[in-house]
Amino acid sequence: MIHRIDHIAIAVEHLDSAIDTWVNLLGCDRSTVTIHEVPSEKVRAAFIPIGETKIELLEPLGDDGPIAKFLSKNGAGMHHIALATDGVDAEAKRVSALDITSLGEPSAGAGGKKIVFLHPRDTSRVLVEFVEPKGTL
Amino acid sequence: MIHRIDHIAIAVEHLDSAIDTWVNLLGCDRSTVTIHEVPSEKVRAAFIPIGETKIELLEPLGDDGPIAKFLSKNGAGMHHIALATDGVDAEAKRVSALDITSLGEPSAGAGGKKIVFLHPRDTSRVLVEFVEPKGTL
Repeated sequence: MIHRIDHIAIAVEHLDSAIDTWVNLLGCDRSTVTIHEVPSEKVRAAFIPIGETKIELLEPLGDDGPIAKFLSKNGAGMHHIALATDGVDAEAKRVSALDITSLGEPSAGAGGKKIVFLHPRDTSRVLVEFVEPKGTL
Repeated sequence: MIHRIDHIAIAVEHLDSAIDTWVNLLGCDRSTVTIHEVPSEKVRAAFIPIGETKIELLEPLGDDGPIAKFLSKNGAGMHHIALATDGVDAEAKRVSALDITSLGEPSAGAGGKKIVFLHPRDTSRVLVEFVEPKGTL
């Protein structure tokens, strides 16, 4: 079951200035922002809570990860939408039967949460992630 | 004040098949989907509730509106993020003082709600909308 949008991810060149921009835009307190390094994805990620969801800002670590490649092709901009579920495996199986294909097997994303991405070909050219938050949703 | 993400908008070529895709992806009931025509924006829009926010699917009406132009340049994909506020005018003024520029004056969007877009140059190349939902937020 999909409960809510967990986060909306935006690729940015410079994390610190992007945090300033989004804290200003949302009118929130900078102390609400959390930062994670995800070496497996070669990104540094900032999460800014807004209501029940979050804005995730993604800055590349190095120049050969997926976000570095996205930026060099597209520049900054919206990167993906993550949907919160209590069962990534079950959801991936459910949508597979509806011809929505996963990109590989579930793996560990920011904060060690289980995630899987879906093929944008099957989702209006939007990159969608299923994420299984730890603890209560 | 920004309360929550009101919707995430996705430009699509064919509204009916995109509704099928997103109803399948979210695992929700098609009866929850509402459809609005917005002749001023030359779009037909479907809203699919998910938690406190919505996925908005935008199909062009005709071939010379902003969504038709977006599709011919980019193809389907994420178009904008809308932030819910109880005061579009006040928020536009607040962020203007922080060097985030509005694109024109507030106007009426889908369902007659007051909206204004912000310049993507000032918001990580993401098109952001402020929207003032009618009634309670």
